Amino acid sequence: MSRHPIQIKLSEGKKEKPDPTTLVFGRNFTDHMFVADFDEGRGWHSHRIVPYAPVTLDPASIVLHYGQTVFEGMKAYKSDDGSVRLFRPEENMKRMNMSLDRLCMPRINEEQALHALTQLIQIEKDWIPTTWGTSLYIRPFVIANEAFLGVAPAKKYQFYIILSPVGSYYKEGIHPIRILVENEFVRAVKGGTGGAKTAGNYASGLKAQQVADQKGYSQVMWLDGVERKYVEEVGSMNIFFKINGEVITPAINGSILEGITRKSILQLLRHWNIPVFERKISIDEIKEAYENGVLEEVFGTGTAAVISPVGELNWDGYKMIVNDNMTGPLAKQLFDTLSNIQNGKEMDPFGWVLQLNNEIAKLA
Amino acid sequence: MSRHPIQIKLSEGKKEKPDPTTLVFGRNFTDHMFVADFDEGRGWHSHRIVPYAPVTLDPASIVLHYGQTVFEGMKAYKSDDGSVRLFRPEENMKRMNMSLDRLCMPRINEEQALHALTQLIQIEKDWIPTTWGTSLYIRPFVIANEAFLGVAPAKKYQFYIILSPVGSYYKEGIHPIRILVENEFVRAVKGGTGGAKTAGNYASGLKAQQVADQKGYSQVMWLDGVERKYVEEVGSMNIFFKINGEVITPAINGSILEGITRKSILQLLRHWNIPVFERKISIDEIKEAYENGVLEEVFGTGTAAVISPVGELNWDGYKMIVNDNMTGPLAKQLFDTLSNIQNGKEMDPFGWVLQLNNEIAKLA
Ligand SMILES: Cc1ncc(COP(=O)(O)O)c(C=O)c1O
Ligand SMILES: Cc1ncc(COP(=O)(O)O)c(C=O)c1O
Repeated sequence: MSRHPIQIKLSEGKKEKPDPTTLVFGRNFTDHMFVADFDEGRGWHSHRIVPYAPVTLDPASIVLHYGQTVFEGMKAYKSDDGSVRLFRPEENMKRMNMSLDRLCMPRINEEQALHALTQLIQIEKDWIPTTWGTSLYIRPFVIANEAFLGVAPAKKYQFYIILSPVGSYYKEGIHPIRILVENEFVRAVKGGTGGAKTAGNYASGLKAQQVADQKGYSQVMWLDGVERKYVEEVGSMNIFFKINGEVITPAINGSILEGITRKSILQLLRHWNIPVFERKISIDEIKEAYENGVLEEVFGTGTAAVISPVGELNWDGYKMIVNDNMTGPLAKQLFDTLSNIQNGKEMDPFGWVLQLNNEIAKLA
Repeated sequence: MSRHPIQIKLSEGKKEKPDPTTLVFGRNFTDHMFVADFDEGRGWHSHRIVPYAPVTLDPASIVLHYGQTVFEGMKAYKSDDGSVRLFRPEENMKRMNMSLDRLCMPRINEEQALHALTQLIQIEKDWIPTTWGTSLYIRPFVIANEAFLGVAPAKKYQFYIILSPVGSYYKEGIHPIRILVENEFVRAVKGGTGGAKTAGNYASGLKAQQVADQKGYSQVMWLDGVERKYVEEVGSMNIFFKINGEVITPAINGSILEGITRKSILQLLRHWNIPVFERKISIDEIKEAYENGVLEEVFGTGTAAVISPVGELNWDGYKMIVNDNMTGPLAKQLFDTLSNIQNGKEMDPFGWVLQLNNEIAKLA
């Protein structure tokens, strides 16, 4: 398939860049964005990089009523030498296509999308903060913008990529979070959309998160919707347990989002010859391990925090304090290794990193 | 609570009204819409009726990424004498608040919303078609329009009401539809958002609907997500079974949307002293009734079609032909009675109808 040309229209003025030391997540956006349109019969067209500007939608647009939309999330990192790195971006484009399939939306051309992304980042590279832990968060998303109130897949879509400089997840170094095990609300169930990165999964989680916040917990751990006993995932992270020297993470089952960080952690652990299993794991098994003193570490994995050690799990009032509420050695090692690979401070033995300065020439 | 004033700005030109005989669902919209804004700390404000125009959203708006949005659907009917009727609109506003609660969104003032709606309909009354079976479909909806990529309830929202003249659901009179019982996909599960009228529930149903379409079935019947055996509902309708002289509809359980048509049908049946039960009903029970020759009628209920008789249920290849694939007498009677009440052709013994010409004066 030949690549569509990308029209570029640069913005007249430039926004002031935010102070990298006080950056928060998802509040600041760069000067430009990428947009493409889809019309049934014509396919994707009008690929363009334009000044960051509002989306104009008919009030009857399908996305506003029936949630036909998917998104992705990844990061670009800039090293002190000015080199820019993306972490496995082709995995995000692949996952976006899986999500698009599930939502009856048209696939994007992954190679074309990656090209558009690298072009956009090239234009916005001054927006990538360099302080350790900061990065440029990348949000590709597709919305159904046909004006029609019937419940049916749209015939018109838009694909956007927007960029947001984000701060370090850990202002004072990596530290453990407290997690509430959710007994009332369910995020997703087999046969539903839990395996896709789509709006409804996040909307449905808001209520449980609100309750957790009120109780002083920063995240919710979801159990499966059928038996209400098998661990699924945590907020915007997959979850890992180290029990008696073995690492366990819930197997992909259709209702869990398959994280790219999760995938990379599995690869790293296997590379290090640490025994690791993808399987069902019940909250009872975790409690039992805790009572037997063999629940050694618990940590979440995701693009935002990379690794998030868990210091406390509260299951219906029963509190499990993990590793004395301190970051465990495995979580620390994984965090350091992955962060260093992402930032170009450590060799990348897996071919995960796409270094832009060289790649752009190759892709263009 | 004192009512907010509604600013009215009329459109300069008027769109051409569509031919009532060829009207389809949800494609044509009237000249004006109602809008109000919400900001945390300030509450709902700037209530206004303005020319129908695009919604302008920051590309990072929460609704586009995390699906924080709810909607409602109801109809206005115009009689030959020019009188305009709404069917239980206060029930829709109440349900909208229930949905808003589930999605961590701010409640609307139901009385104020109803007032806004009647004002808007007053302005657009020439848009209400009068041919039997046609009506003005009303779509209130609330979207989260804060620009923030964090997964958290928004601090900014917009409430819209748009109107769409719609054709008769039955071009050639009421007739039965074919329904596929869904075994693979799940719409909603206890603990999820199935009981709310929110985007994600509809997005998750698209795939199953697409498969049904390809097989020549017009709707999907959902089974529960836990045991995969209890009937939930059908597309945008609740479902009723007449078995051996008794009428059964699945009980509200947290994953089924509580339809206002359903509620009205229950009231009508009780009024007529027809035995009716809200309880769990499994697909096996329906199959058994069919085999014993006592599955007398099956019909869906919802705002769009009022009553939709079901002529065939296909469960994994096992086809149940209901009432010789003809509209049953109970479905017919319910359809006629409810349609007549809605259109003002029959006495309304339940106080369901809000007749606008009188009510507007009362509300204003
Ligand atoms: C629900 C959910 N689970 C897990 C993850 C982790 O995925 P990744 O490692 O690709 O960031 C995310 C995303 O970021 C998520 O939204
Ligand atoms: C999922 C779903 N179930 C049932 C119904 C029926 O509800 P009502 O009778 O209020 O139209 C609807 C809506 O129209 C719906 O969207």
